[in-house]
Amino acid sequence: ETLRTLSDYERRAEHHLPAEVWRHIQEGSGRGITLRENRAAFDRIGLLPRALADLDGSTAIDLLGRAHAAPVMLGPVAYQRLAHPEGELASVRAAAALDVGMIVSTLASVTMEDIAAAAIAMAGELGRRPAPLWFQLYLQPLREHSLQLVRRAEAAGYEAIVLTVDAALKPQGITLPPGVEPVNLAGMPRPRQTAVPGGRILLGTPLAQAAPGWDDLAWLRRATTLPILLKGAVLGEDARRAVDEGVDGLIVSNHGGRVLDGVPSGLELLQNVAEAAAGRVPLLVDGGVQLGTDVVKALALGARAVLIGRPQMHALSVAGMAGVAHMLLVLRTEIEAAMAQLGCPEPRLLCPERLVALS
Amino acid sequence: ETLRTLSDYERRAEHHLPAEVWRHIQEGSGRGITLRENRAAFDRIGLLPRALADLDGSTAIDLLGRAHAAPVMLGPVAYQRLAHPEGELASVRAAAALDVGMIVSTLASVTMEDIAAAAIAMAGELGRRPAPLWFQLYLQPLREHSLQLVRRAEAAGYEAIVLTVDAALKPQGITLPPGVEPVNLAGMPRPRQTAVPGGRILLGTPLAQAAPGWDDLAWLRRATTLPILLKGAVLGEDARRAVDEGVDGLIVSNHGGRVLDGVPSGLELLQNVAEAAAGRVPLLVDGGVQLGTDVVKALALGARAVLIGRPQMHALSVAGMAGVAHMLLVLRTEIEAAMAQLGCPEPRLLCPERLVALS
Amino acid sequence: ETLRTLSDYERRAEHHLPAEVWRHIQEGSGRGITLRENRAAFDRIGLLPRALADLDGSTAIDLLGRAHAAPVMLGPVAYQRLAHPEGELASVRAAAALDVGMIVSTLASVTMEDIAAAAIAMAGELGRRPAPLWFQLYLQPLREHSLQLVRRAEAAGYEAIVLTVDAALKPQGITLPPGVEPVNLAGMPRPRQTAVPGGRILLGTPLAQAAPGWDDLAWLRRATTLPILLKGAVLGEDARRAVDEGVDGLIVSNHGGRVLDGVPSGLELLQNVAEAAAGRVPLLVDGGVQLGTDVVKALALGARAVLIGRPQMHALSVAGMAGVAHMLLVLRTEIEAAMAQLGCPEPRLLCPERLVALS
Amino acid sequence: ETLRTLSDYERRAEHHLPAEVWRHIQEGSGRGITLRENRAAFDRIGLLPRALADLDGSTAIDLLGRAHAAPVMLGPVAYQRLAHPEGELASVRAAAALDVGMIVSTLASVTMEDIAAAAIAMAGELGRRPAPLWFQLYLQPLREHSLQLVRRAEAAGYEAIVLTVDAALKPQGITLPPGVEPVNLAGMPRPRQTAVPGGRILLGTPLAQAAPGWDDLAWLRRATTLPILLKGAVLGEDARRAVDEGVDGLIVSNHGGRVLDGVPSGLELLQNVAEAAAGRVPLLVDGGVQLGTDVVKALALGARAVLIGRPQMHALSVAGMAGVAHMLLVLRTEIEAAMAQLGCPEPRLLCPERLVALS
Ligand SMILES: Cc1cc2nc3c(=O)[nH]c(=O)nc-3n(C[C@H](O)[C@H](O)[C@H](O)COP(=O)(O)O)c2cc1C
Ligand SMILES: Cc1cc2nc3c(=O)[nH]c(=O)nc-3n(C[C@H](O)[C@H](O)[C@H](O)COP(=O)(O)O)c2cc1C
Ligand SMILES: Cc1cc2nc3c(=O)[nH]c(=O)nc-3n(C[C@H](O)[C@H](O)[C@H](O)COP(=O)(O)O)c2cc1C
Ligand SMILES: Cc1cc2nc3c(=O)[nH]c(=O)nc-3n(C[C@H](O)[C@H](O)[C@H](O)COP(=O)(O)O)c2cc1C
Repeated sequence: ETLRTLSDYERRAEHHLPAEVWRHIQEGSGRGITLRENRAAFDRIGLLPRALADLDGSTAIDLLGRAHAAPVMLGPVAYQRLAHPEGELASVRAAAALDVGMIVSTLASVTMEDIAAAAIAMAGELGRRPAPLWFQLYLQPLREHSLQLVRRAEAAGYEAIVLTVDAALKPQGITLPPGVEPVNLAGMPRPRQTAVPGGRILLGTPLAQAAPGWDDLAWLRRATTLPILLKGAVLGEDARRAVDEGVDGLIVSNHGGRVLDGVPSGLELLQNVAEAAAGRVPLLVDGGVQLGTDVVKALALGARAVLIGRPQMHALSVAGMAGVAHMLLVLRTEIEAAMAQLGCPEPRLLCPERLVALS
Repeated sequence: ETLRTLSDYERRAEHHLPAEVWRHIQEGSGRGITLRENRAAFDRIGLLPRALADLDGSTAIDLLGRAHAAPVMLGPVAYQRLAHPEGELASVRAAAALDVGMIVSTLASVTMEDIAAAAIAMAGELGRRPAPLWFQLYLQPLREHSLQLVRRAEAAGYEAIVLTVDAALKPQGITLPPGVEPVNLAGMPRPRQTAVPGGRILLGTPLAQAAPGWDDLAWLRRATTLPILLKGAVLGEDARRAVDEGVDGLIVSNHGGRVLDGVPSGLELLQNVAEAAAGRVPLLVDGGVQLGTDVVKALALGARAVLIGRPQMHALSVAGMAGVAHMLLVLRTEIEAAMAQLGCPEPRLLCPERLVALS
Repeated sequence: ETLRTLSDYERRAEHHLPAEVWRHIQEGSGRGITLRENRAAFDRIGLLPRALADLDGSTAIDLLGRAHAAPVMLGPVAYQRLAHPEGELASVRAAAALDVGMIVSTLASVTMEDIAAAAIAMAGELGRRPAPLWFQLYLQPLREHSLQLVRRAEAAGYEAIVLTVDAALKPQGITLPPGVEPVNLAGMPRPRQTAVPGGRILLGTPLAQAAPGWDDLAWLRRATTLPILLKGAVLGEDARRAVDEGVDGLIVSNHGGRVLDGVPSGLELLQNVAEAAAGRVPLLVDGGVQLGTDVVKALALGARAVLIGRPQMHALSVAGMAGVAHMLLVLRTEIEAAMAQLGCPEPRLLCPERLVALS
Repeated sequence: ETLRTLSDYERRAEHHLPAEVWRHIQEGSGRGITLRENRAAFDRIGLLPRALADLDGSTAIDLLGRAHAAPVMLGPVAYQRLAHPEGELASVRAAAALDVGMIVSTLASVTMEDIAAAAIAMAGELGRRPAPLWFQLYLQPLREHSLQLVRRAEAAGYEAIVLTVDAALKPQGITLPPGVEPVNLAGMPRPRQTAVPGGRILLGTPLAQAAPGWDDLAWLRRATTLPILLKGAVLGEDARRAVDEGVDGLIVSNHGGRVLDGVPSGLELLQNVAEAAAGRVPLLVDGGVQLGTDVVKALALGARAVLIGRPQMHALSVAGMAGVAHMLLVLRTEIEAAMAQLGCPEPRLLCPERLVALS
């Protein structure tokens, strides 16, 4: 059967992955309410096509002063060697080939330096400037370790730091098979939960103290001149404060429904955050994006771009770099078709008037 | 098992069609949201019967100055020989036998001249004036080819041109088996998508330039004296402009959910368009019509008539001309029964007061 | 497995009935929307129990000047010998045993005289006055035949005439097996649909002319002194007019979802009709009643009593008279339990304040 | 497969219980609407996490002047030896180990004295003051028997009386196997339903007279100095009156959907009762609690604590005391994680602003 859509890749991926890895990638926390909402929120929004419009334009956007060929990036997804032996190297080569940016996780299973090198090499082969690479930071128990990560990212040419703040107390969720490791954290200690029955479990323990706070953000702001994006702050008031504290962009995300179950969909959170941020910084959003129509909906609701998470792992497991590249081509083609059918040949023309609530 | 309803035909059709053809006929784009909405919109509307009313009347309507025996037409459906060797010839004979009009697709698998001749012959046998035939136009890359099609339609006795504007960038979706071809387009070039990875895909390419624009409508308006109906313009403002530009009727349609997924149902779009058109031209609607009650709902919401798409192919595949004729008889009988139970023995008596939202 | 609820009987009935009879009993018209709504409307309404209330009371009601032990009657259901060889005789004996009234259909498969005699005999054995029997009238093509039916009902002791007005054009739906016949209509002609393809189908045909009109109601009002109830007039304005024309009660019904698909549930129609009738005549309602909680909901929304249709046939098929009697005992027990838990030990205490919309 | 959540225990329990016991534990009355609503109400409420907050705090609450380590109690569940030979002894030991309070049913299958002794012994072993034990009272047909139960509870160290008022007419629902008995009621007569077909069934019978009334509450208030909580009064007006009559707390409950089907979820009733009680007494709620996120939702909507019912039986059947203890640890851990992710490290910080309706 031919692979024509991102959900074709998803279906196929189940047969290419060990059961435990498949479960790990797909799972949502709790009863999976947020996971389902991430998709359902897109499906509840309808589109109003405009007939007979002019279709001269392109999908290009500007983000933090840099041109992106399309309003899509590969989101940070840990341990990509779970899905394919080449892991992040395959993903980043595909992203480079399709001129799509990528956010590399702290928990990458390939070093950030090797990933950056692969991107540059691929872009070189194609005679293009590489698409942007950003580094996603999980704060480490010791600030010096966090700082080491930032410095390495700066040195390797990453163009922004994405500080993820929503997953501090998330347990790991899978036993890593041999050869899959958080190689960027080699030599650093990892926090762990140690509950005393009847006593404190999380609140007030060292684990909770290690969770990122506003002071950590302020520290990071001082520590680097790279643009900082906050991933996972979803309240209007938190978004506003973060902008006041100097972040350069916000990634509206519920972590793919993997942390607190019951959080509304990324798409709905986006609407609150967009109001609060009032255009002061660009917004990205993720959670459930699978179709070109999803992307145009997010853009019409105020996102500058979207991230895709799980589809990377699906495509990677099915066909490595070629899978990710084809998956990105499918998505980009769908975006263009949707823009054309809406009569909006530029991202900035996508606006709430093109949307309608489906009943 | 006896065939008593249009969905009986649908169920049976699956066993009469090659899997790929069945999938092609049934499919909706994307996640099938629009496809499902087309049906769900009818199912959400309830009917309020009026007891003890007088039942003297008929289903006849007037459309563009011509009497139609019932508020139903066969909509344009390409390549009907996919469903039955006689293809459009079987459909048009059935339509003629049941005194129901038909819209012939640009992509018919029988020439428009042969279809028109079959309709006239059948009406002659029954000693009746033939029911109306309209020609559905897909604009061709070269205007001279579009003009050739219009001239042939005029010559063959087609009574109106239906310009479909919602499917310019829709890929074909099926590999045509031998013997099934767009015979009306013999000798004309067909547009094709040629994406360069990393470069432009649709927007700004020749393919996008060939999509119909307002200038094309203006050209067509000048090119023929036949009535023109626009199929697939679903925004109030597009409808208004089209009427200003001289179209004689509007067919509110999301192309059976086959193009942009997420477009609301035809029935809901109808309500917007009806407001915008404000009675200046007659409105037709399609998408999901399967029952007599669907037809009365559409009429009560402002449609003059409905088109049926897929049910033609279902009935055709099950029993050729006899199938389509029986399917049309079932539908016409259901329409009469629904009108009787509503106490509305004339189409013009169907009004929003007979409807109620179901919860 | 023990039979503890009416749906236990329903489930079991499927194994006691020929497939075609089962389908015939269960079926709804069209897509079954009304059929499902009949149940769903009950399920959408929640109940607010009142704690610690006094529980001294009973389920007895007054209807047309007559005491009924419970707010429930067996509704008119044709051809009960389809479900059990004793047919209506078994049902009426069970009703008499449980002191529940019954409405006998024009299309009973036992003569109305034999049914009445069986009811009297059973009540005699129990040393009680028989519960009320009403006769349901389908108008016959010739008025003299309708009159004959009314006169026979008067003579046999039926206490009211129920004129059903919603099913005039409903096709029969099942081929009657040998021995099951409309014995009350022996010697009378039956109307039949004879469509000419391409010509008139129902509207304006003799069949439509034979459908009951307001003039027929006026005639019936003059023809008998028995109370008349109208079954199937569901619009507020029709209800009002019927009361003006002298009917003594209204049975709000969509015929169990068997006629026009899309009609709202009986329970929802009840609320409109209750407003229009403004207490001038008692209201009954049917459609989907299966539980004691359904009955209290209907009463709280303005019904004096409910009818049950299909559950008669289910219980009859499972265990004949004993089945119907047990089914009625189950329902009466459930009604009492629900009234107790609501703190409403009398039907008149059931009011909208005990209800709440479930989300 | 590892047991990581309360629903893992539920799934597993089915294989550890005789079919009839499983059905008995799981069942809801009627069509199970209330049973489903109990869960659905939690699932419809979304959570709004607050990023970067301080996480120093604990789950401890005060209830009737007593510290509880967590806002959770084991609710009264009859006949726990149906699930495990140690029955209530296993549950209470687990509760004591996890420092969680327990409400012991009148229908316990172990005497209330033995249960209290086991709790004290376990707390002693752990060197802690025992967590609170409350006694749930079903009024007995004779007041002297009810009084005996209260006196025994006082003597055994129970700290409150929970008067359940919603289940007076509930039939037992299961035939108790040998060795499982209401040992606390030894020597007392049990009420029984004895319907005469055609006559009174419940209303106005001795059974109805034995149901608790406001006079019984007044008597109980005079009879004991222990705090009294009313379980199952769910109307605002009943709640208000109960507080006026001196109850010390309200347990908002629909008895796990086991009595009157159609009652809204505990969570929704809570909101009405909270308004009526206006903070005069603490509120507890139960029905459907399975996750830490459920607990934080209930607290944010005004509950001081929640009870869990069925999960006790599930965990008991799977692994006896160890099962219940682990189940409680899972729940407590989930509560802490949810509070952390919401940025609310104290129960009193949970407020409606952290919630949002999911669509
Ligand atoms: C397997 C997996 C690993 C992830 N690892 C990270 C991570 O290391 N850092 C991070 O910020 N987000 C991580 N995420 C969250 C994604 O960045 C993203 O927010 C989410 O997957 C978006 O939803 P989608 O999968 O529906 O596209 C991970 C998600 C998945 C599925
Ligand atoms: C197999 C197929 C082929 C179609 N071909 C055409 C076409 O050539 N031209 C056109 O305007 N619409 C075409 N349509 C759309 C139909 O005219 C119509 O809008 C749609 O089928 C209505 O929905 P329904 O199938 O639910 O009745 C096609 C639809 C189907 C299913
Ligand atoms: C098998 C069957 C036969 C029926 N026959 C009659 C009839 O002869 N006359 C009539 O007025 N209604 C008839 N009805 C409708 C019932 O009186 C009643 O309105 C309906 O069954 C109520 O819905 P319920 O079946 O969900 O209880 C019939 C219904 C069924 C299911
Ligand atoms: C098997 C079982 C037995 C119960 N026994 C009692 C009881 O004896 N007394 C009482 O007040 N509630 C009793 N309940 C109701 C529970 O206290 C509680 O209200 C309900 O189970 C909460 O819902 P949950 O099971 O969804 O947590 C019982 C519930 C179950 C499932």
